[in-house]
Amino acid sequence: MEKVQKYIDENTPRFLDELFELLRIPSISAQSEHKGDMVKCAEWLAASLVKAGADRAEVMPTDGNPVVYAEKIIDPAAKTVLVYGHYDVMPVDPRAEWRTEPFEPVVKDGRIWARGADDDKGQLFMHAKAFEAMCATDSLPCNVKFMLEGEEEIGSPSLYKFCEDYKEMLKADIILVSDTSMISMDTPSITCGLRGLTYMEVEVVGPNKDLHSGLFGGAVANPANVLTRLVASLVDENGRVTIPGFYDDVRELTPAEREAFNEAPFCLDEYKKALDIDDVEGEAGYTTIERTGVRPSLDVNGIWGGYIEEGTKTVIPSKASAKISMRLVPNQDFVKIGELFEKHFRAIAPKSVKVNVKFLHGGAPYVSPTDMAAYKAAEQAIVDTFGKKPLPFYSGGSIPIISGFERILGIKSLLIGFGLSEDAIHSPNESYGLEQFDKGVRTIPLFYKHFAEVE
Amino acid sequence: MEKVQKYIDENTPRFLDELFELLRIPSISAQSEHKGDMVKCAEWLAASLVKAGADRAEVMPTDGNPVVYAEKIIDPAAKTVLVYGHYDVMPVDPRAEWRTEPFEPVVKDGRIWARGADDDKGQLFMHAKAFEAMCATDSLPCNVKFMLEGEEEIGSPSLYKFCEDYKEMLKADIILVSDTSMISMDTPSITCGLRGLTYMEVEVVGPNKDLHSGLFGGAVANPANVLTRLVASLVDENGRVTIPGFYDDVRELTPAEREAFNEAPFCLDEYKKALDIDDVEGEAGYTTIERTGVRPSLDVNGIWGGYIEEGTKTVIPSKASAKISMRLVPNQDFVKIGELFEKHFRAIAPKSVKVNVKFLHGGAPYVSPTDMAAYKAAEQAIVDTFGKKPLPFYSGGSIPIISGFERILGIKSLLIGFGLSEDAIHSPNESYGLEQFDKGVRTIPLFYKHFAEVE
Repeated sequence: MEKVQKYIDENTPRFLDELFELLRIPSISAQSEHKGDMVKCAEWLAASLVKAGADRAEVMPTDGNPVVYAEKIIDPAAKTVLVYGHYDVMPVDPRAEWRTEPFEPVVKDGRIWARGADDDKGQLFMHAKAFEAMCATDSLPCNVKFMLEGEEEIGSPSLYKFCEDYKEMLKADIILVSDTSMISMDTPSITCGLRGLTYMEVEVVGPNKDLHSGLFGGAVANPANVLTRLVASLVDENGRVTIPGFYDDVRELTPAEREAFNEAPFCLDEYKKALDIDDVEGEAGYTTIERTGVRPSLDVNGIWGGYIEEGTKTVIPSKASAKISMRLVPNQDFVKIGELFEKHFRAIAPKSVKVNVKFLHGGAPYVSPTDMAAYKAAEQAIVDTFGKKPLPFYSGGSIPIISGFERILGIKSLLIGFGLSEDAIHSPNESYGLEQFDKGVRTIPLFYKHFAEVE
Repeated sequence: MEKVQKYIDENTPRFLDELFELLRIPSISAQSEHKGDMVKCAEWLAASLVKAGADRAEVMPTDGNPVVYAEKIIDPAAKTVLVYGHYDVMPVDPRAEWRTEPFEPVVKDGRIWARGADDDKGQLFMHAKAFEAMCATDSLPCNVKFMLEGEEEIGSPSLYKFCEDYKEMLKADIILVSDTSMISMDTPSITCGLRGLTYMEVEVVGPNKDLHSGLFGGAVANPANVLTRLVASLVDENGRVTIPGFYDDVRELTPAEREAFNEAPFCLDEYKKALDIDDVEGEAGYTTIERTGVRPSLDVNGIWGGYIEEGTKTVIPSKASAKISMRLVPNQDFVKIGELFEKHFRAIAPKSVKVNVKFLHGGAPYVSPTDMAAYKAAEQAIVDTFGKKPLPFYSGGSIPIISGFERILGIKSLLIGFGLSEDAIHSPNESYGLEQFDKGVRTIPLFYKHFAEVE
């Protein structure tokens, strides 16, 4: 392992230089104008993995953005690690709030600032460079496969079929994923729970054209008013989702589980201060970490209708829309929740409007066992680099494809992410600490070592 | 009068050609990029009025867009008519829904299609051309003054001071305004009531940056969710505005007044069919024409927050906003209503967010008496051209400056508009019927004639 760590010492500036190249490609999967950037990004990664030591690396087409697949088989009898990551990034809006160019990375205050700096280019690139360090120093103890997709931020629509089609090629003992966060650099953690997701779009349609709000105001249902009414009614005064059946399959924690769960270090005052809010808000009867870790939620991710430019326009818009997503917990089914949502939204719409409801994407919640060999290997690797045993952590986030991997490939995932909440993923001014990147690159080879050794 | 009507017969094609020039100027007052177009439009009108026969015409600066003032004094002892109109127009969005270019007028199906075709360029230009016809045929029986502003669609912020500053210059016996609609071509009407307006903008501010809706969803107040809650609560299940004190000053109609009011021809089925809606919606206990004519209302004119582009983004927006306007009836005070709104909105905001509330503009309701000389003259002029006595009509719309005229100048306004609801003012595909324009140009000189004659 010393050779590996020395290789990392000597090559880190080049690692970062290469990462910057990767970050400069604006691979936003949600926006079709970036189709070409997705292919460019995939090709860049394939070339990079070959240089790092892969026996083969391919840009494999799908119905959507291509998947980068690469592998190095050292011994068919050895354990196999399948590294999963995604090279697509979130849109950058609100663009005006970025202090630097989102696709022109800079280092400042010990952090890399760019869209994708953490999520997930920065994190997946730690795996590429850890792999390079092991190959270059002849220390790779496992077979390695890489599967890097370009559609995670839009719900991985093509990767399910890809997994079905390439089951044999993707065979592995564990799927290794760095696309999550730790509690803090002082309190390292391994994510053992992810929420599921159901993402919907609704449209309320009223009159066949925008109307003058004087001539018609008060006599005709205003789709924007109706939308606020319908959306507001989806969560009650106790912070509970009102969709009938929504909680039916939620696994309630036992009192002992809740107690253990709330032992994770958490300071409400610091949490509020970091967000600059005077109060938190959520489901009555649950703590903040329970609310994101083990309880479902419903959020408006976007809402629009009528005149939203400068000045005033006295108009009743003919329609208004919202994007609404729900985070799900075991054992909620994301398809069923989408159906319940649609049924309920149609049921509560008044006769004065029409509504359109669209399922945009979704994924199941995931629980990663803490008693598997990979978890133990990761725990030991983190003890080696952080000097502390990591805590098991339930993240509020979702990586919908992870439960798909278990269902299709029959392989568990280990979620060893090095993100921090201050990385502001999905927000303006995303960043990734140089120390986080460094700890990641150094921890990953130790994982391989321990994983090869444990029973 | 025969000479005037003959002049109109012969010159109508040129009138329309000139109107098209006027319509081509994109004089959108709400958008600062059109500042130059406002001046261009004012200069065009001043030149046009001089050609039409004015003794003087000036583009007079204000703190905002200029006012076009013109006059022709035939005899200091004769009655004086002050024509008011506005050369600014509404924004064109949603742009995609226009079937023709908003500022490239065309005639099709007997109508002029363009932004401003009715509101108010088409209507004010009828006055300019009627004036020209009377001048050219030596038939002008009154002194005429024109005051054409460029800020009506944004609440006439500069015209109040203009009236204060030029009280003497603006002296007149009546203010003549064509900026309203008739019930239909078969049922001509004169507007004798206008609603007032209070136009507000609210912003709900939560966390100091957009957040990942997985990591924070369910634990932090989402400003878009909170906005829907607050806005939805402003109107109750009976369609009544919930702001404390909102109805305190509303003048309730007597049963006899209500009965008379509901005698106006109105077909609910046709109304719904024209708008393509299955049901109307409004304050319980009132008919549709009461709801727009004599009852106040609250409408969301625009709402926005979070991710509103293509695809999905799992984000909790740091803020969300809405433009909300209220139509007022006698004797509601638009300033007081704005204050009540702000106080209430702040009171209902939860501690988990901050709110910003801004008063954008407003104006008082107006009642135009049906027993004044000008009303009788207009009634007779309409009998002459339509062959029917016009009905007095309460419009749901607002022209905030009209009550200002009475307060500052001490002059009543006569609202003789030739619009129709199908003109779709403020909407995409605004239009104005050639017949409406023609009837207007021919009715106006008759009004002058009768007005000069009545006691």
